Amino acid sequence: MTFQLWMQGVRQRTEQALDHYLPSATHNPTRLHEAMRYACLNGGKRLRPILVHAAGAVSGAKLTALDACSVAIEMIHVYSLVHDDMPCMDDDTLRRGMPTCHVQFDEATALLVGDALQTQAFVTLADAPVSADTTRELVRTLARASGAAGMAGGQAIDLASVGHPLNEAELEQMHIMKTGALIRAAIRMGALAGESLTQTELDKLDSYGKVLGLLFQVVDDILDCTGTTEELGKTAGKDAAADKPTYVSLMGLAGAKAFADDLLAQTQHLMADAGQSGQRLKDIALEIVQRTH
Amino acid sequence: MTFQLWMQGVRQRTEQALDHYLPSATHNPTRLHEAMRYACLNGGKRLRPILVHAAGAVSGAKLTALDACSVAIEMIHVYSLVHDDMPCMDDDTLRRGMPTCHVQFDEATALLVGDALQTQAFVTLADAPVSADTTRELVRTLARASGAAGMAGGQAIDLASVGHPLNEAELEQMHIMKTGALIRAAIRMGALAGESLTQTELDKLDSYGKVLGLLFQVVDDILDCTGTTEELGKTAGKDAAADKPTYVSLMGLAGAKAFADDLLAQTQHLMADAGQSGQRLKDIALEIVQRTH
Repeated sequence: MTFQLWMQGVRQRTEQALDHYLPSATHNPTRLHEAMRYACLNGGKRLRPILVHAAGAVSGAKLTALDACSVAIEMIHVYSLVHDDMPCMDDDTLRRGMPTCHVQFDEATALLVGDALQTQAFVTLADAPVSADTTRELVRTLARASGAAGMAGGQAIDLASVGHPLNEAELEQMHIMKTGALIRAAIRMGALAGESLTQTELDKLDSYGKVLGLLFQVVDDILDCTGTTEELGKTAGKDAAADKPTYVSLMGLAGAKAFADDLLAQTQHLMADAGQSGQRLKDIALEIVQRTH
Repeated sequence: MTFQLWMQGVRQRTEQALDHYLPSATHNPTRLHEAMRYACLNGGKRLRPILVHAAGAVSGAKLTALDACSVAIEMIHVYSLVHDDMPCMDDDTLRRGMPTCHVQFDEATALLVGDALQTQAFVTLADAPVSADTTRELVRTLARASGAAGMAGGQAIDLASVGHPLNEAELEQMHIMKTGALIRAAIRMGALAGESLTQTELDKLDSYGKVLGLLFQVVDDILDCTGTTEELGKTAGKDAAADKPTYVSLMGLAGAKAFADDLLAQTQHLMADAGQSGQRLKDIALEIVQRTH
């Protein structure tokens, strides 16, 4: 199967799994459930589920276990987007080419959508078809990556940085927390779901996840600078307009592209010994960088 | 030990446990951590931790396990208060006699505080000193009680009800979800933490928790009608002013008080066979009702 077809398959099964784990829009409270489904079921890129499944290929995990992990981490990602778009944060009106949740519904509903999606992620993990030991480790991994020491903490640093530009080390720390932690968690969850890897094997995948998270952010900054609103499906140039620091503002466009190429080489090196089971992880890093060329 | 001294002891150890499980205000992002601590460490009533410990006395749980459960459920409760107070929801400026989180800090920080407190609840459960099987059941219990099928869903119904008064059955359903689910979860978590009860014993405690949740709401409505802002430590008469339905608006003050007395009798009956280990649960129901007399 080609890499593109494989990704398409993961997206399709994640869409179905999200539909399954989300509350039905015909049950009360219908408006909340409808809004949760609106925020989640919109044909997103599903990068994190793709990472879960790619790492799951290395760990030999059951697809149903990977579906539960994919749904949980995607719900966390979507909740953060819904809250991040709200007027008191980034005040964005467009997301993946569609009105953001608080525009389509209202602010109070968007607040509850984010809250309830975060909760539903942990309901989903509690019901995942894996051992209790693995469930505990999955909950720990996802919660640590998304809370004050991870994603939410990174957003807090990002907020504090507006008008007070960060240096390169501070910028890297912010991104490691804000987006990197969840990308790394996706890899670790796919690795854990197989219930078979040694600590050494887990650690190697974790190193890959750490580098990939940084790569993803550098590419995101490059695209924010070079892409159009239509191509991105969200408002382009938003970070630059808000005087937020980016890798492009720090390193220049050419410097940021060179940094991305260096990170890409590291991902390929880390997966050099993994054989066929690691091919998807190599492909993903290539795919991410190709968007900039 | 008298009941009042016992409650005071639970409040003190919960305050210490929250201090332990919350991120330090000296670590980055300091403003977020400071705001999380501001929202949590304010000498609240700690009803849910008191319920966890009272049920834990029946199940014979370790105090350290009950501390972790108490912290987790209190963080969920506090996150819901922080978000509920925000301008797009209830727009409240006073909570327990102090400025609400978004007033003391800012809206974006309050949004992140709620998000990160919810996450930290699950970090805390993942690290709780109980078996992996019990951890999974605790995560399931807390997540189901606080998400779209519980607390957050109840808030959504509450929002939708403003200007469209609910009938008694709808009001009861809303309260069962909005506040009752978390109170019931507190009892169930204390029961689970002992890792020893039979299903029949768990079910009886669960019935007690369900009745107590309803009792708590009826009493809250009575106090919102009869108490002053100073006594309550929050804005009195807020629900009536917002044209939100309450048990008092539905049943009248005397009717609501009679309903509370009936629910109280049910709690005492359910704990009649539990002996000395169930005394705290009986005392709690009495204590809740006494606030109205």
